[in-house]
Amino acid sequence: MKRIMCVVSYDGTNYAGYQIQTNGIAIQAKIQVALKLMHKGTAVQITSSGRTDAGVHAVGQVFHFDTFLSIPSDNWKRALNTLLPDDIHINSVKEVDNNFHARYDSVSKEYRYLVLNSPEPDLFKRNHILHVKDKLDVRAMQEACQWIEGEHDFSAFCSAKTDLKGSKIRTVYQVTCEQQGDQITFIFRGSGFLYNMVRILVGTLIGIGKGVHRPEEMKEMIESKSREKAGITAPPNGLYLWRVRYLE
Amino acid sequence: MKRIMCVVSYDGTNYAGYQIQTNGIAIQAKIQVALKLMHKGTAVQITSSGRTDAGVHAVGQVFHFDTFLSIPSDNWKRALNTLLPDDIHINSVKEVDNNFHARYDSVSKEYRYLVLNSPEPDLFKRNHILHVKDKLDVRAMQEACQWIEGEHDFSAFCSAKTDLKGSKIRTVYQVTCEQQGDQITFIFRGSGFLYNMVRILVGTLIGIGKGVHRPEEMKEMIESKSREKAGITAPPNGLYLWRVRYLE
Repeated sequence: MKRIMCVVSYDGTNYAGYQIQTNGIAIQAKIQVALKLMHKGTAVQITSSGRTDAGVHAVGQVFHFDTFLSIPSDNWKRALNTLLPDDIHINSVKEVDNNFHARYDSVSKEYRYLVLNSPEPDLFKRNHILHVKDKLDVRAMQEACQWIEGEHDFSAFCSAKTDLKGSKIRTVYQVTCEQQGDQITFIFRGSGFLYNMVRILVGTLIGIGKGVHRPEEMKEMIESKSREKAGITAPPNGLYLWRVRYLE
Repeated sequence: MKRIMCVVSYDGTNYAGYQIQTNGIAIQAKIQVALKLMHKGTAVQITSSGRTDAGVHAVGQVFHFDTFLSIPSDNWKRALNTLLPDDIHINSVKEVDNNFHARYDSVSKEYRYLVLNSPEPDLFKRNHILHVKDKLDVRAMQEACQWIEGEHDFSAFCSAKTDLKGSKIRTVYQVTCEQQGDQITFIFRGSGFLYNMVRILVGTLIGIGKGVHRPEEMKEMIESKSREKAGITAPPNGLYLWRVRYLE
């Protein structure tokens, strides 16, 4: 058996999320259907770096699977993309060590969140960027970003719906907020993120950008460890799992 | 009664086209439902500058209607956008002369067609730009564009499905083809266009860009007046009704 690692992009708009659940079509299921076809009816289980929610996108999600097939990487890529729907695209395929694990071996993840800050929406991007009408104070949001960096207990920024029993301490390496024209891009790099953490951080940052909260309140919210103190959960449509890094 | 003119953008992806027909949901129907709600159940017929096909988009489609309501333009816009789905957006509303007609009074139309010319598709833009893998020769396409400009009988570039009985002579004022990074934009400005004319022109231009035809063959194809001589009909997803002009 060979272990194969794939980097995949997907448009999450029409899916109930990455992971197979009881309701709705999952991205994982679509990939497994394609792999089953390639394996002449034998089911193939894939393991990803982690789930993404309904409506959340990926530019560089990573998964692995084991196969008895001997196919060159380029052919894997071509065959899978032919079998996959046009909102899921395999970017690269490579054979990896049999010990490689897409979830446990990841050393950092990057998420990006895109905001269109303009009086009018752009309907062609409505599923791929969050539209915010009110003029946002980018300086204030940038100031607030600093408080997020470092090792913190992010209990205040974790959905109450989580089934996580363990520690809510995570290390965020870098958070940036950049404006280009009327687009604002938030970038989050960290060792890992809690359920809904990036979306609650963005919802809170937008609240700060609107002047509802002061930048320093980000620090207080983190210290409170209380979900009620933080801002709202930003919608999924602006969020992208951008990149997953592994030790080479 | 007052006559109201609206400029509307829409994402044609999920519609069977602009105009109400026997099958599928039309953009016109969605707008008329919103207007009926505003008119407390009285049906309101809208008249546009012309139809667009299934999957074709608009940045500046124009329509008019008559109303007994007295509402300031900004409130019209806000109310309609609240009632419309998020893939249809009213850009502007103004009261016009009772003789104004969105179709008969238009003096020119601009269509744009977007092509992503790259080895890999961009799945987030799949409904809004045509992906072409093969490297296109932009110079050759630009050369071919010149032959389209002017007054010609465009029978070779009209769908056989047209119900048009009259003349197929149209005046095209300007055709350009510009590349920016991996995006190629075709712009067509003319007095009017036949059914599928822009899509057949683009299909033919792409054939020239791929080297299937020489640029001068565009001239011969137009002169042939034969649909079989021209290229294929390009898919709808890259096409936008960009602007409709009227005499002020």
